[in-house]
Amino acid sequence: MTAKPFWEQVGISFVQHYYHQFDSDRSLLGALYLDSSCLSWEGEQCRGKVAIVEKLLKLPFRKIAHSITAQDHQPTPDGCILSVVVGQLKADDDQIIGFHQTFILKSIDESWVCTNDIFRLALYNFS
Amino acid sequence: MTAKPFWEQVGISFVQHYYHQFDSDRSLLGALYLDSSCLSWEGEQCRGKVAIVEKLLKLPFRKIAHSITAQDHQPTPDGCILSVVVGQLKADDDQIIGFHQTFILKSIDESWVCTNDIFRLALYNFS
Repeated sequence: MTAKPFWEQVGISFVQHYYHQFDSDRSLLGALYLDSSCLSWEGEQCRGKVAIVEKLLKLPFRKIAHSITAQDHQPTPDGCILSVVVGQLKADDDQIIGFHQTFILKSIDESWVCTNDIFRLALYNFS
Repeated sequence: MTAKPFWEQVGISFVQHYYHQFDSDRSLLGALYLDSSCLSWEGEQCRGKVAIVEKLLKLPFRKIAHSITAQDHQPTPDGCILSVVVGQLKADDDQIIGFHQTFILKSIDESWVCTNDIFRLALYNFS
């Protein structure tokens, strides 16, 4: 058995921590962003950990649970990690819905933080 | 009317060019990648423009047409651009299917190339 490359180990561990934090207390997610981090949430953009946490806290649900279907991780030329997560989420008593989320992770002071975050619900409608 | 920020202009123009090229002659897509570029295609990874084009040419369809539903673009701390595309594709006479694709674009010698590419079909099944 070959050990997973480091970017996969880091990516998997970040993703696990991120959604655990999101589902238990999303007000603490600021610790994973920088003041220069970008978030695009369903096409709406904001910048900086304060604005990002504010945006996440304003989302119109109280309880949320994410489950991950697939994740891909790659090293970038600048020593960052690109991660794409595909999954499903259940907010309050709403129907389960698909989502995908892209992160760029950067190592700062020996911990990995998120510099870029793009979230989209999977609202595919072919009818 | 405010002009779009440069990373959006570059991202939109790259995405348009990429899918136009993909749909008309995907053997030419190598020009958009580097020898160090990473591709993850439905979880399968390959590296370098030669391996990437080989992978794309082996995909089991002759004709393909992409249409884009939404796209997000962000600047990264290292001067790259992160782009996420959500869309639908029709391969040969198959059913239309959703997909999402993430690119990191880097400026090399005054043109933008793709250093990272993660593609996933949107196979959400909640039944």
